[in-house]
Amino acid sequence: MADSWSFEALSPASFLARSAVVHRDRVAVVSHDRQLTYGHLEERCLRLAGSLRAIASGRPVAVLAANGLPLLESHYSVPWAGSPLVALNVRLTPGDLAFIVGHSEAAVLVHDEDLREVAEAVQERLPELRLVSCGRGGDEYEHFATSGPPSRVEVTDERGTLAINYTSGTTGSPKGVMCHHRGAYLQALAMVAHAGISAESVYLWTLPMFHCNGWCFTWAVTAAGARHLCRSTGDPVATWRLVAAEGVTHLCAAPVVVNALAAATTTPLPQGQRLDIMVGGSPPTPSVLSRLEALGARVTHLYGLTETF
Amino acid sequence: MADSWSFEALSPASFLARSAVVHRDRVAVVSHDRQLTYGHLEERCLRLAGSLRAIASGRPVAVLAANGLPLLESHYSVPWAGSPLVALNVRLTPGDLAFIVGHSEAAVLVHDEDLREVAEAVQERLPELRLVSCGRGGDEYEHFATSGPPSRVEVTDERGTLAINYTSGTTGSPKGVMCHHRGAYLQALAMVAHAGISAESVYLWTLPMFHCNGWCFTWAVTAAGARHLCRSTGDPVATWRLVAAEGVTHLCAAPVVVNALAAATTTPLPQGQRLDIMVGGSPPTPSVLSRLEALGARVTHLYGLTETF
Repeated sequence: MADSWSFEALSPASFLARSAVVHRDRVAVVSHDRQLTYGHLEERCLRLAGSLRAIASGRPVAVLAANGLPLLESHYSVPWAGSPLVALNVRLTPGDLAFIVGHSEAAVLVHDEDLREVAEAVQERLPELRLVSCGRGGDEYEHFATSGPPSRVEVTDERGTLAINYTSGTTGSPKGVMCHHRGAYLQALAMVAHAGISAESVYLWTLPMFHCNGWCFTWAVTAAGARHLCRSTGDPVATWRLVAAEGVTHLCAAPVVVNALAAATTTPLPQGQRLDIMVGGSPPTPSVLSRLEALGARVTHLYGLTETF
Repeated sequence: MADSWSFEALSPASFLARSAVVHRDRVAVVSHDRQLTYGHLEERCLRLAGSLRAIASGRPVAVLAANGLPLLESHYSVPWAGSPLVALNVRLTPGDLAFIVGHSEAAVLVHDEDLREVAEAVQERLPELRLVSCGRGGDEYEHFATSGPPSRVEVTDERGTLAINYTSGTTGSPKGVMCHHRGAYLQALAMVAHAGISAESVYLWTLPMFHCNGWCFTWAVTAAGARHLCRSTGDPVATWRLVAAEGVTHLCAAPVVVNALAAATTTPLPQGQRLDIMVGGSPPTPSVLSRLEALGARVTHLYGLTETF
């Protein structure tokens, strides 16, 4: 089937290629002090893909980074390098991380410069692992993003592995869940439809992107041509200020974060602004729901398991 | 691939199965004097599918009907009968219709009772064609919908033929364009995302459903759990009244209809109501756009060809 003239394999990385045409000059991402258009984001991801392809040779690329430009870019550059993405939980110990990186057979570990010590502790256990430092002071990653040879490995099997996400390992060693391109593509479109994301939307990253690929919002926001905002501080009062100042329309959060948001303020959002909050895990209590509604937010409860995606 | 445990073929008819679970008691369709929930709509389509399957045996089912319940139901009952759908333009001559029905090798022609004369003229040219009368006075169709054995033929090849739509034949005989399940599924989701349809939306059928399956809105509206409203009169003044009275949020229309709507009134929609109009064909003029915006409507210009879908 795949070689038929009318067939195009479904891959969520293709949303960036489309938005780089349709929304070329629209702001794709605001990450700390940087701001990139969709055209610029695509160019960086193509160059990153070329660089990563040369050092990963199709083996997985693991990423140990907080929400920000490099982790977002990895959701495009790694598939375009022809490698599965392994987004790592930054809170794990070097031992757990080494287990996951080793188990996935990753060839490369991209890590925040801030997390160099942890990354080196992982590398000690896996001497052949190639480290690439990113974020503030991560010059090699920036060199990849600006000087690599543009590359986009074609997806020939839409059910090939896009990402491997590891469970928390509460009942044994972490288990790797393989997500395929087709599944993530459809899930991302489902999130666009259910959350009502459009090119006018501003999505605030509070949910870690390493948690099930940010519930596919890493791709969904791009599919809609909306804006990724990576500026969350973890402080709920500052989050409300950011929501009002930046016109945030959507965010995803764990129950504990939603509870903290509900308790953090009594000042409603500016007239006409509505915030859609998607919450996973346990359902919010009625009092949290009504408090958030009074502030101008609408809460949607999502349900899912890493293992069943 | 298709027999793998984790694989589900994409078919837009599955949107009705989902909405019959998720939105079971929500109004799915208001068609003239009838109103059906999603649960009820699914049950009718399953029974229709069982009846049509017995008489079509997998050969195409052609439908000659104006916008209304039977033509909408055919977009689910015919695929569930395991047959391709051929939705016919009611304005064609019996000669043209006979060409299309014969060329598609349809076994059955479902027709509005109002169009019995035309249907019989087609049958004269194709003596083996089985007629089923629907709409006001179409008792056989109603019998199928209420008493047929429920059936849902599984889609095993998502690139199998879902519908055959014929071109207008301005440059020769009409050409049949085969649409597959996967393509229509993805196109319907694209329409949900672009038009911003949600379960709260009310979609007014002005565009004929026989025109490229209503640009896939026959399936998109169902995917979102929104309401199909089949009550359009063709009179633009009455259309505006309907939009205000029924809280219509979306409609699709050809350029000539959009121009008529822009000229029909100077009274804006009620405060807080917004109408999204999707228009195909030639782009509306700036004066039409600004007039519609002043009335509370937002216009999106779509582009497509029957042949390229």
